[in-house]
Amino acid sequence: MLNQTYLQMLNQKSVIRTLNEYGAQRAKEIGYQNVFDYSLGNPSVPTHPAFTQEMIRLLQEEDPVALHGYSPTLGIPSVRQAVAESLSRRFGLPYTADGIFMTSGAAGALAHALRAVTQPGDELIVFAPFFSEYSAYAQGAGLTLKVVPADTKSFQIPFDKLEEMLTDKVTALLINTPNNPSGAVYSAETLTRLAELLRKKSAELGRPLFLISDEPYREILFHGAQQPYPAAFYEYTLVCYSFSKSLSLPGERIGYVAVAPRFEGWEKIVPMCGQISRGTGHNCPSSIIQLAVSKVLELTSDLSVYETNADILCRELSGLGFEICRPQGTFYIFPRALEEDAVRFCEKAKEFDLLLVPSDGFGVPGHFRAAYCIDTEKVERSLEAFKKLADCYR
Amino acid sequence: MLNQTYLQMLNQKSVIRTLNEYGAQRAKEIGYQNVFDYSLGNPSVPTHPAFTQEMIRLLQEEDPVALHGYSPTLGIPSVRQAVAESLSRRFGLPYTADGIFMTSGAAGALAHALRAVTQPGDELIVFAPFFSEYSAYAQGAGLTLKVVPADTKSFQIPFDKLEEMLTDKVTALLINTPNNPSGAVYSAETLTRLAELLRKKSAELGRPLFLISDEPYREILFHGAQQPYPAAFYEYTLVCYSFSKSLSLPGERIGYVAVAPRFEGWEKIVPMCGQISRGTGHNCPSSIIQLAVSKVLELTSDLSVYETNADILCRELSGLGFEICRPQGTFYIFPRALEEDAVRFCEKAKEFDLLLVPSDGFGVPGHFRAAYCIDTEKVERSLEAFKKLADCYR
Repeated sequence: MLNQTYLQMLNQKSVIRTLNEYGAQRAKEIGYQNVFDYSLGNPSVPTHPAFTQEMIRLLQEEDPVALHGYSPTLGIPSVRQAVAESLSRRFGLPYTADGIFMTSGAAGALAHALRAVTQPGDELIVFAPFFSEYSAYAQGAGLTLKVVPADTKSFQIPFDKLEEMLTDKVTALLINTPNNPSGAVYSAETLTRLAELLRKKSAELGRPLFLISDEPYREILFHGAQQPYPAAFYEYTLVCYSFSKSLSLPGERIGYVAVAPRFEGWEKIVPMCGQISRGTGHNCPSSIIQLAVSKVLELTSDLSVYETNADILCRELSGLGFEICRPQGTFYIFPRALEEDAVRFCEKAKEFDLLLVPSDGFGVPGHFRAAYCIDTEKVERSLEAFKKLADCYR
Repeated sequence: MLNQTYLQMLNQKSVIRTLNEYGAQRAKEIGYQNVFDYSLGNPSVPTHPAFTQEMIRLLQEEDPVALHGYSPTLGIPSVRQAVAESLSRRFGLPYTADGIFMTSGAAGALAHALRAVTQPGDELIVFAPFFSEYSAYAQGAGLTLKVVPADTKSFQIPFDKLEEMLTDKVTALLINTPNNPSGAVYSAETLTRLAELLRKKSAELGRPLFLISDEPYREILFHGAQQPYPAAFYEYTLVCYSFSKSLSLPGERIGYVAVAPRFEGWEKIVPMCGQISRGTGHNCPSSIIQLAVSKVLELTSDLSVYETNADILCRELSGLGFEICRPQGTFYIFPRALEEDAVRFCEKAKEFDLLLVPSDGFGVPGHFRAAYCIDTEKVERSLEAFKKLADCYR
């Protein structure tokens, strides 16, 4: 009677959500300030005031019938135009409104991008460590996920392993830089090599391989680090973006797919996304949120707390003997655990009310993710707990 | 390279959208006021001021980190609770928050409800005339649409035909009352007979048949007509709702799936919807819109203009010789066309700048839909065009 696939999925509880729920429960017992919850990637700084002001202005001044009326499936034309202009200005590619599809956050963007350039049964390549929901996205689009193992020294792409995995069943690759959970930023060298490999392999296959670039952390970079723009390196790139992190709006579900006019057939992708929407029930993101975001496209929240927290954690955890590939962006750090079994290590951490996510769900063993989108004061107070945890392994 | 299914769908342009685009073009040529555009079901009255006030209050008074933070996948708990309480109070069923799943409008609700209670390959029964996007929803969920032909006298259910079509491949039925496009309201008698038939058939099959009730027009009723609540008649009912029409918020994409605790396993449906979301990229509707709507659940826009317009059109079109089943709600009227070929009839109407939608896309031949969510003044000015159109057939 009920759908068997989804019924069985009920048993696969998200490790992160479970941990976060445990944290909420524990906070009731010992007080919120005493639980060092590094589980969830929920921004901890307010949105830019200009977003709030524009929302209020729209509500006070605009005709409500137009303001809350149907957005076209592909997004509100003026919003798509503004996104295209901003991307062109910032990244030097000739985007037009026809290449912009407004979505409900990055999840919505990825759901459409994946379906547009693959057929069910195809293989999708992802790179460990990867955001654990990629498995669900691939499953939803009928794709088989193929995971390139991580280079845990640099978290750049291990090209020898990638090349082995580029079978003729692969139609798309999904990258995420700056990376959740490692905080690594793909270098220009990595992106150049990737583009060269994909062009070579596409020529062999007689069809283009598509690159899907998931970029919600694009603006969260530390100490002047730059994120080279993947679509500038490889033509067949679909950029998936969300304003969740840059503008601290994760609950408002607003993002886009961007396709630059740099390959034959590019202009079909966005209208195809519109067709995909009809079957998934996506339709379009909230109209008022589209309009408000379009006025603050190049603003961000004050993201400096993430850099501050990253610095403290890198310095202090290194001092405690943790092996860390220093994050260049995001609000995650991904150190090696102090024992091989990351799950057991994170269970041990809970004894000190330190909530860390074991790395297994990200496709890498023996590490943990700490999401430091929390107050700096709390990061500082958590150091004692990290010290006690490390002491258990001396 | 590109997905073949969606690529081919690009050629199937929506008749309604095409007509509406023609109208916008024509308005540029002869002036907006001279185009009688009855094509789109876009509410023409403003939202309730209390919604706007609550939005502004949230933006001015609430902590932006919490306000715009991630909503849980199933919806914000306080919002789900408020919806459950309101439904229980209004319709007498014992809803709890566990039975409420917040969605991006009715399209999002239907996408989840359909997937939860069917398996790909199953048959879904719909009743002509039906909202044309049902085909896309069924296709998206991998279902075969089976259309029960219309009883064009009453637009109630023709039970003899339904019974014939209830094969053992059917797992769900989708109803829409008040109905787009006919404006018909299923009577208590119709819903009682439907429930009896479904119970009988479920017993034969040894599994429950599910009823999905699409109710975006629930509050738009004329001259004191009542809409009996389908879920009160049949236990295995998933209610899909949208605030698009009642609160004139179609662009804000806000609605829900509601399941009452009246059958074994009911409590699994909403968590399953959460799992479905992971693959479709739905996640959750905008958090601020969820919060604002939860404060105005029992308010509506001033919907009286639709009744006024319905009255004018019924009276005047009947006078011109149109055969009409009087709408009891919605903002649609669905008269018989003055020639057999509805497409040709609607083409003829365009000569008088009267934009009517031919009935073929709704699964019924020989009728047309007029969406009278436009100003009454324009309805009145359009009567001359209807007269000229009717004169062509004398």
